[in-house]
Order: sequence, then C-alpha cells, then structure tokens
Amino acid sequence: MKLIQKKRIAFVGAGNVAWHLAQALAAAGHEIKAVYSRSRTSREALASKLPQAQPIATPDFKDLTLDVVFISVPDAALAEVAAALKVAPGTLVVHTSGSQPLTLLQSIEGARTGVFYPLQTFSKSKSLDLAQVPLLVEAWDEDTLQQIEALARSISSQVHTVSSEARKQLHLAAVFACNFTNHLLGISQQILQEANLPEQLLQPLIEETVAKAAQQNPFAVQTGPAIRGDENVLQAHLQLLQQHPGYALLYQQLSRSIQTQAPNGDAKANQG
Amino acid sequence: MKLIQKKRIAFVGAGNVAWHLAQALAAAGHEIKAVYSRSRTSREALASKLPQAQPIATPDFKDLTLDVVFISVPDAALAEVAAALKVAPGTLVVHTSGSQPLTLLQSIEGARTGVFYPLQTFSKSKSLDLAQVPLLVEAWDEDTLQQIEALARSISSQVHTVSSEARKQLHLAAVFACNFTNHLLGISQQILQEANLPEQLLQPLIEETVAKAAQQNPFAVQTGPAIRGDENVLQAHLQLLQQHPGYALLYQQLSRSIQTQAPNGDAKANQG
Repeated sequence: MKLIQKKRIAFVGAGNVAWHLAQALAAAGHEIKAVYSRSRTSREALASKLPQAQPIATPDFKDLTLDVVFISVPDAALAEVAAALKVAPGTLVVHTSGSQPLTLLQSIEGARTGVFYPLQTFSKSKSLDLAQVPLLVEAWDEDTLQQIEALARSISSQVHTVSSEARKQLHLAAVFACNFTNHLLGISQQILQEANLPEQLLQPLIEETVAKAAQQNPFAVQTGPAIRGDENVLQAHLQLLQQHPGYALLYQQLSRSIQTQAPNGDAKANQG
Repeated sequence: MKLIQKKRIAFVGAGNVAWHLAQALAAAGHEIKAVYSRSRTSREALASKLPQAQPIATPDFKDLTLDVVFISVPDAALAEVAAALKVAPGTLVVHTSGSQPLTLLQSIEGARTGVFYPLQTFSKSKSLDLAQVPLLVEAWDEDTLQQIEALARSISSQVHTVSSEARKQLHLAAVFACNFTNHLLGISQQILQEANLPEQLLQPLIEETVAKAAQQNPFAVQTGPAIRGDENVLQAHLQLLQQHPGYALLYQQLSRSIQTQAPNGDAKANQG
C-alpha cells in the first residue's frame, strides 16, 4: 500500500466511467462524499457502492467540504452540467472526457480545473483493474497539474500529461481501435451463431491479431482476401451476407480501404 | 512428446500458411520431403528451413514416396493448382483454405482428398505456437477423416470437424474479427503516429475490448460516441479525419452500423 494524500471527492454523473473511477478511488483510500446524477436510480446505485457517499439531487456542492469534483457525464451534456455546477472556491474540478477540451470547465466559478481521462472502455457489468489503465491528465498550471497527477498515481501506474489537442486525436484513435473493433467482433459472433458454430473458435485468431498489431505495423502484416485481391472470395462473402445488407456494405468498404492502403508487397510475395 | 505416426509430406505453396504448417509438422516429427512453389525464391526459402526437404520446380510428386500433399496457395489459384498436381495413387491431398470447398480437389486423379484449415493469421516474420490453433478438418469418408485428424492432433490440441458450408461462414466471421480488425488497428496507429503519441497507449484498451468481447455479447457492451448518439463528437472526429477521406467514410459507415444494430438500452441508461 503506497502512502496517498487522502482527498474528499464528489462525482457528477453515475455512468460507466464514474462507476469504476469512484470505486477505484475509494479502494485507494480516498473519501467519496457525494454522487450527483439526474437519474435517481443511477446516483443511488453508485452511492450504495461507496460507504461514505450520499446521493444528491442537485449539483450544488458549496456546503460540502471537498477537494475534488469529478464530472463524468456524456460529452454532449458536459457544457450544460459544468454551467450548473456550484462548488466552494478553490475546489479542483476535473472532467473525464476523451474528446472535450479543458476550456469547457472555464465557466465554473471559483474552481481550479483539469482533465482526468481514463483511456479504457468501461461497463458496469464487468469489473476492471484500473492499475494498468492509462490516465491522461491536463491542467492550466503546474501546481494543479501536480495535484491531479498525485491523485491519478494513487490508482494507476500509467499517468501521462497530454494536451487537449493530442487527447482528441487519441480519442479518435481509440474509437477505431476499440469501439469499431468491438462492433466487428459482434458481427463476427453473430455470423458464428447463425451458422451454429462455437464462438470461442475465433478467440486464438483474435488474440494473435491483437498481439501481432502490438509488435508490428498492422498495415505491414495485413492478411485476408482483400489485400490478396481475391475477387472470388470477396464475391462469395458478399453472397453469404445477403441477409445482412448493412454488413455487406461494411465488408465492401473495409475491403476497399485495405486495398487503398499502401499495397503490401511483403504479404503479396508470401502467397503461392 | 506424444507418439505420432510419422508421415512423409510435401507442400504445394510456400506462403505464410505453408511456412508455419510445414515447420510445425517437421517439429512434430514428420518428414517434409519436398516444397513446390512457382516462385523459386519462396520454395528455396521454405525448403532451407526443413532439413529433409528439396525445393522442386513442377508440381509432380508421382515419383516421391509420400503420404500427404498439402496444397497451401491463394484461394484464387487453388483450382488451377489442383488440376496441375500429379500424385501417386492413394496419396492424401489436403488444402488449407478457409473459403474453398472440399469438392475443389475432386479433379486430382487417384488421390484421397480432405481439408486441413488452420484458423489463424500467419506472417512469416512472426513466429507462432500452433498447439492452440484450431485446425478445422473435413474429408469424404471416415477413414480419410481419421488420418487427417491424427495428423492434425500431432501439432494442435484444437481439432474440429467442420463441413465446407460451415467453414465458409467461419472464414467470413474471421475476416471481420481478424482482417478488418487488423486494418482498424492500423488506422488507429497511424492517427497516433501523426499526433506524435506513443502507440502503446492504446494497448490496455485494445486488450480489454477483446477480453470483454470473449465474455459477453459485444453488441451488448458497445460503447463510444456512435452508440451514445453523440453527434458533436462524431462531427468533431470527421473534422479531424479531413486529411483521410477514406477513413472518414469508414468512420461514418461503422458509426451508422453501430447505430442500426439493436439499440443498447443498458449502455444508454448508464450515461449521466
């Protein structure tokens, strides 16, 4: 157990990110004093997981003695929530968004502001060890940044200072690597289910794909019918997808994108 | 070391799949006697990895004493290669294609035929333990099937009998889960590189995405701006992709596909 400077914390939002962050901070020894969410069910559910937290119905934290307020709400709601937030002067307010700039918190009167973005995918239904999750932090001044970094290091060994601009690019990259990949894995499982094939058959292939991509430029090790220019297989696959026109369209566009990508001489030479 | 019935084997093709299969079979105690490929460089490179193999320039194996011939060539070339192949009567000939039917080998005079499909992605530049790779096998008759299964079990513990029809669906699912996923990981790395961000930042996120998809239906745990209907983020991301119109198009279509997919009440309820 490392020595931490214990902080008194409140959460605005009780969704997937707040769910995991609040519990990890509490487990690290911080005191989560309050959880606000518009949804009564959500705020009560999260507060019930935190021994010292009360669910509250308005985002007014002026009368609570707090060091830090986390705003962890959908990106689209962030500006509105920040405008409604009330905190005591000098309170540190951070948001947890990958795509939203630090400037969005400027409207919060009397607050010091920053960003505390956990680069991971969260679902309430799946537990997760935050110790290896990269936490990307940002602040206006060095002193505030150090406070946020200390808080981040109390729950993760991967703390990086990243500007709002770079964080936007990182979030975009994460959408491709995580959100879109997850969708493709879903399509793949649906195809297996419809063919009455065991879903775990593809697991070694998926794991090898990801392991390989971590070691080499994925474009340089691309395999499959598209990079080979194997029109017969492409046509046969589109035929198999007749009942799923949306997937057939995706198949075509992903294949085209693979083919547009700098032709991979190595993969072609390896055939035959 | 388990007891195996040692086979005398030749390979037609010296690409990624032949490269790994031939070496795994040799390591398991089988004798790889010959490697044919149109490309002299390729056949010599593979034969040089196999102590007992000679590179040969025509696909005529009639005068070699062989038990099994593997045809491991691009799908589009398979029919032509099979038609040109010459083997002694009774030789077992298998192809290693995920998408091509067993019937494609019917033209090979005097041969017993089957399928020996390793469900994995192969690059010559990355070594791989085949012991956990699913091998999908098929044959016309029970006796041939048992021979192929024994051979498969000598290099992998994951041997499954799968019909040509089901194998096609499996291959299609693998294209989504592996080839397309790899392309998305490549795009993601390119975005990070262009923003001067360390590529390994996304690795925990990618691994968690894959681990989660193995435990739960990916559609049920979909996260990200598309499933949240977060138009501001979607538009901002398209803006960031202005220099990559092909990627912007993919971004739009993948987002649309996620949104078309049965709306995920759980993910939406978890927000805010």
